[in-house]
Formats: sequence, structure tokens, C-alpha cells
Amino acid sequence: MVLMSAAYKFSYRVNFVKPSPIRTLVSKISAISATRKVVSFAAGEPDPNVIPRDLYSTILGKVLHEEAKSCNYSPTEGLPSLRKSIADFMWRYEGVKTSEDNVLVTVGGSQAIDLLGKLFIDPGDHVILENPSYVNTMVDWEFYGARLVGVGVDAEGVDTQNLEAVVKRLLSEGRRVKLVYTIPTGHNPAGVVMSEDRRKHLVEIASRYDLLVVEDAAYNHLVYEGSYKPLSHYDKEGRVVYVGSFSKVLGTGLRIGWLNASSEIVEVVKAIKGPSDMCAPVPMQLLVDRVLREGLYDQIKRRAVEEYARKRDTMMSALDEYVQGAVYNRPRGGMFILLKLPVDVDSEVFADRLLEKYSVAVVPAKPFYLDDSGRSSIRLNFTMVKADEIEDGIKKLGLLIRELA
Amino acid sequence: MVLMSAAYKFSYRVNFVKPSPIRTLVSKISAISATRKVVSFAAGEPDPNVIPRDLYSTILGKVLHEEAKSCNYSPTEGLPSLRKSIADFMWRYEGVKTSEDNVLVTVGGSQAIDLLGKLFIDPGDHVILENPSYVNTMVDWEFYGARLVGVGVDAEGVDTQNLEAVVKRLLSEGRRVKLVYTIPTGHNPAGVVMSEDRRKHLVEIASRYDLLVVEDAAYNHLVYEGSYKPLSHYDKEGRVVYVGSFSKVLGTGLRIGWLNASSEIVEVVKAIKGPSDMCAPVPMQLLVDRVLREGLYDQIKRRAVEEYARKRDTMMSALDEYVQGAVYNRPRGGMFILLKLPVDVDSEVFADRLLEKYSVAVVPAKPFYLDDSGRSSIRLNFTMVKADEIEDGIKKLGLLIRELA
Repeated sequence: MVLMSAAYKFSYRVNFVKPSPIRTLVSKISAISATRKVVSFAAGEPDPNVIPRDLYSTILGKVLHEEAKSCNYSPTEGLPSLRKSIADFMWRYEGVKTSEDNVLVTVGGSQAIDLLGKLFIDPGDHVILENPSYVNTMVDWEFYGARLVGVGVDAEGVDTQNLEAVVKRLLSEGRRVKLVYTIPTGHNPAGVVMSEDRRKHLVEIASRYDLLVVEDAAYNHLVYEGSYKPLSHYDKEGRVVYVGSFSKVLGTGLRIGWLNASSEIVEVVKAIKGPSDMCAPVPMQLLVDRVLREGLYDQIKRRAVEEYARKRDTMMSALDEYVQGAVYNRPRGGMFILLKLPVDVDSEVFADRLLEKYSVAVVPAKPFYLDDSGRSSIRLNFTMVKADEIEDGIKKLGLLIRELA
Repeated sequence: MVLMSAAYKFSYRVNFVKPSPIRTLVSKISAISATRKVVSFAAGEPDPNVIPRDLYSTILGKVLHEEAKSCNYSPTEGLPSLRKSIADFMWRYEGVKTSEDNVLVTVGGSQAIDLLGKLFIDPGDHVILENPSYVNTMVDWEFYGARLVGVGVDAEGVDTQNLEAVVKRLLSEGRRVKLVYTIPTGHNPAGVVMSEDRRKHLVEIASRYDLLVVEDAAYNHLVYEGSYKPLSHYDKEGRVVYVGSFSKVLGTGLRIGWLNASSEIVEVVKAIKGPSDMCAPVPMQLLVDRVLREGLYDQIKRRAVEEYARKRDTMMSALDEYVQGAVYNRPRGGMFILLKLPVDVDSEVFADRLLEKYSVAVVPAKPFYLDDSGRSSIRLNFTMVKADEIEDGIKKLGLLIRELA
């Protein structure tokens, strides 16, 4: 089949299609992994050995046997029982009082973000996000015609003073500004956690300028130091849409996430989700519901947090020992360390060379930036790599940096 | 939370959001079912008792134990092993020679249809479909700005002579016509199967006028009489995108479907799928892959086809006995009988009254039509209802018709 049909060429939308830089890299890594051993810091996933897969199979055995409709559709918005469990979860783990009517179950947090973009973004709308931000949200929302405006991030998260100034300027220029997208805890790729003051300030800004905030809470449950309330906790006006995910603790492959929002927003998201994919996978919904109801989530999460904190420390020590002159953070949450190389090199070229020469995979941070400031930065993941491979991988990273210096 | 924020009101897209008429009905049916017994002909799903759930739990136990990454992401396009199994399936069951590079695994067939709309439809594009057609595709594609143009259906499927005339007229008026959407086998809601001649003709039309055909093959594997090749079988130019689904045989809740298309189309769909939901649920991908590889699909399908053929016959006999003057088809495939009431009544009013008075649920066919011709038609499902409830439900349907005559 060789067609590039007129129908295909005709679509102006095709111009917006960019292959995800991460996914392209992942394909390359797997191709190379087939021929030799690769130490990969490129993932954004939990360690498969931390996921209690045998427990899951016991639970699935039970639900498939007991629940007659476990392999039929659920309501679009998710199983009533799971929505209730998630509402309880929001209170217990996030200090957010909500009800099942405010919860909509999605195919991972990603789908919630996609549906919000599909619903709210008209071509030409301005969307404010952190610079850097999560590249998949950027690509997905640009497809809907969003103009992305980035605001810098420091150790306390996004600079909300600057963010307010940007909103003011855009509005004074007559631009439509609707959405702010933020990853307040364990930022991907910056690895930082937003301070409480800034969280409150961002919610105030949303109220003052009549904006909606999409709070990507994917990493909220991997916190190694301190404890943080989500933006939704400070929100009294329904201006924050909380996008939750079980991916980073229970497993990315289950594809169970949710959003928590005003019931008006839930209703309209539901109306577009139904025709687009009916519902989230039902055996996976039942699995997550049982994990929550039987009080198993706590222990799964505790084990993950302990394991990843240890791996993070191993990586920090190795960086301190083998990588001189680079700038990097010590993440209090999430899965990532953002590292600015001490040499002036394009991070995509660097990542390629590191993979080719030393069989170490990292993600170039460049595609996560809206400007050139991330040109020489890379993203390091410490959760999926084997603990005993971290030092070796970081040592090689240091070697390449010295060669390029 | 009470907000209707500016961001919400601003979006012109919100004007395109219509709650799915089927999903609204389903909510109503479940509310009533909580207080009294309802005989439901409203579903579009397999019988839960025909789905081998205990077999699934044995397989899931194995894959979760054996496959270390069973709960992590798969590639966006699906597990390589499943893509290969599906390519083999396409040859074995559909007579379509293809390869894994032409297969992309999706969250049910629905997601494939949504992604194709997202990719190909620019606002104002004309899309040709059967009248009636599947309401979810209509709602989903309208959201992307499609103008839907319907072509009538008879016992041989869509009238392709008429379809060609419509395409010609639109093109001569300077309209952009890109896509044709069709459900050739076990049409939803019409219940008909397209003849071989018309299949060939439709593929010719696509070639002649440079169109893409989206072939919704959801019901291709529930065929009770005859055997039919998909449009893709006749396609030599990659003009047909085959949308497959395991929902109707293996279970709608698994959310595993796929598309088979030219590798150019697969690449670009993959590029937009990645950021929107990463991948289809991985334990479910592994389950389906094992079912196919271990040769279990045949027996599951055989049992489903036998069971549903019997139920169809029960429903046909009951209709012949209790419902006089109505027009309905004897479906050779799929899950539905489309019935034109012998009384001039709005099918939504009729369905409401039947549910309220007799606790029998049917789907009004009106929302599946682009004009008023389905005003007095209803859709009856014979697969999910219990066999021993069919006669009673149809008897009550006949009663209400007589009351309204």
C-alpha cells in the first residue's frame, strides 16, 4: 500500500502532526537494546519489579469471576464504585473534598488532558504553561490550535509573578487566554515541586483573570520529602481541573487516570469522551477499585516511594562524584532530574552520542522547552533503571561530558 | 463547585457537544432497572455469559506473572506481538494480506474512528455516510467540524449508485469531500450486510474520486449466514482504512480494537495517538494476543455466533407472532434488527412510553438518521438480552403498538 491520497494531503491538521520526540527516542533505544545492553535513564515509568503483578492477577481472577459485566462496557464516566473510591482517595490523599459526580475515569491522565484540550481550545487560543513543560501536552494541544506561552521555572516551581505579568500582557493585547497547564509536584521534566505560596497565588490568578487551571497530578503520589496539597485544595471556585493518574504507582500499562472537576465540566467532557472511546478498560477499572477498597494502595505506594527515594539518592551521589560542573536538582518528588550540561552542546546530539558510544540512554530536554534555554539540558529518570546500573551509567555520562569539554 | 467559567463559555467547540442519545438512554434504563425488572433490547454488546471470563483470568494470571512489563507502557502502536497476531488475523479471517507495520492497536474501534476524524477532518469537510449510520461516529466527527451527508440503505447495504451521484454533485459544487464512512457487515442500526457488488463499487468510487473509505468492521465476526470479504480485500490502492474490534466477540470492556491502513496513515495516526493516550491497556493487549496465538478465538467466536443466531431466531419468531404491520429485517450479521413501527409516532416518545409502561427498553433510531425518515423506527438488540425474556419483551412491544394504532 503506497497511497498518499488527496484526503490525506488535504488536511491542514496534518501540518500540526509532529512525531513525539520521546516516542521516537524510545523506538531507537529498543532497536539498540536488541543488539547490546543499554542502561536507560530515558523512561517515565515505575520499576516493573515494584508493581505487585501477582497480587493483580489474584484480584483480576476474583473480579472476572464475580462480576458478570467485568468484560462489558462501563458507563462512559467510569464504574460508579470506582468513581466513589477515587472521590474518597481525593479526600484521603489530597485533602480535596469532592464527590463521585465530580470524578470522570479516563484512559490514563493523558486522555483527560487530551479531552480538556479538545473541549476548551479553539484555534488561536493562548495557553500558559511552564517552560519547560510536558512535551506530550504541548504536542497534543498544539494540534488543537493552541498557542503555547511558557513561563520559567525555578526551584519553587513556576514563577507566578511572571505568570501574572504574562497573562496581563496577553489580555492587554486582546489575546484569548483560557487555560494554564501546570505540573506542580515532581515536574516533568524539571523535577521540582511548586511551593505552597505559589500554589495559592496561581489559584488567585485564575480567579482574578477568569482562567481555568489544568493541574497535572501524575506525580503527586511519588513524594520523597515534605507533603504538598494540590492546587485543587485551595480552589473555591471550581477553576482547577485536577488530572489524576494511577500510572506512576500502580502501573502505566493499566491506563487508568481520572479528572476531578466541577460537575458542569465533567458532564461536557463525558459527552465528548463517550463517542471517542466509550469508557476506560473495565477489568482495569475493577482492579484499581479493589486495590483502593481493600486498602492495598498504601503499601504499594510506600514500597514504590522507598525504592525510588533510594534510587534517587544513588543517582545524586553518582552525579556528585562523576559529573562536574553540571547544574541539577535534587527532586523531592516525581521521577526526574533535569541536568544542564556544563558544555555547550545540543542535547539531542549529546543523547545520540551517549547512546551510540556508551549505550546509555537519556532524554534530551530541548523538546520540552518553548525557547532555546533547554538546548544543553537532559532529563534523567531514576525510577525504572536497575539500582545497580545507575552508577555505571552516570559514570559514562561524566566521561562523555569530559570528552566534549 | 458551581463555576461556568469564561474559559468554558468561550469555547466555540462546546456548541458542538451533544450528549450521546444512547448513553443518556442507558442512564435512564439503569435508573429504572434499580426499582424494577427491565427487559432490555437497548444494548450493543455481547452476552456476558458468552464471554469466557474464567479463561481470561487464567490467561491474565499467566501473562502478569511471566511478562515483566505487562503493567508498563507498550509502544503507542501496540505490542509487536499483538500487531503480528492481528496481521495474521486479517489474513485468516478477512482475506486481507497485511503486515504488522500496517496495524495500529487502539482503545476499541471507537478510538480508531475518533483518531481518523481528528486527523482527516477540517471544519467544513463533507463526509459521506450511510443514512442511518452509527450515532457515535456522527457526533464525534461533527465535533471536528464535519458536514455529514447521508446516502440511503436497502437490504443490500448502502446504495452506491446514489452515493456516487452525491459525491459528483458535491464535487461539482466545489465542496471538499474526503471520507466515506461505512459499516458494511451487520450495520448499526440497519442490521443489513452490503452485497459484494456494492463493496467492489464503493472501492471503485473511492479510487475514481480520490476518497478514503473508513470501513467500520466491528460486526464482521458475528455473521450468521453467508460469508463476506471486507472492502479492504478489494482495495489495491490503500484507500480503505479497516477499523477492527475485538469488542463484539471477546468483550466490549477490554477496549482493544485496531486499524489496518497504509503505513503512511499508521505513522501519522500513531503520532497523534501517542500524546493523546500513550497506548491501549497492556494487560488487555496481552490477553487478546494470547487468545489469538493459542487458537482460542475460533471457539469463542463459534459459541457467540451460535448463541446469537438462536436469539435472533427467537426474536424473529416473536416479531412475526406479536408485531403486525411493522417492517423489519432478518439480520445475516451483527446485533441489531431495525424496525419501522406501523404507527406514526416519534420513536423517542415510543421508547419512553415502552420503558415507563412495560419496562421494555429499545433504542429510538431517530438519532441515527440525518433526516426525518427514521422518525418512527426503533433498534432492537438480540445479543445481550436473556433468551427466555425475548418473547415477553416483544409481546409487550406489540401491545403498545396496538394501543397506539
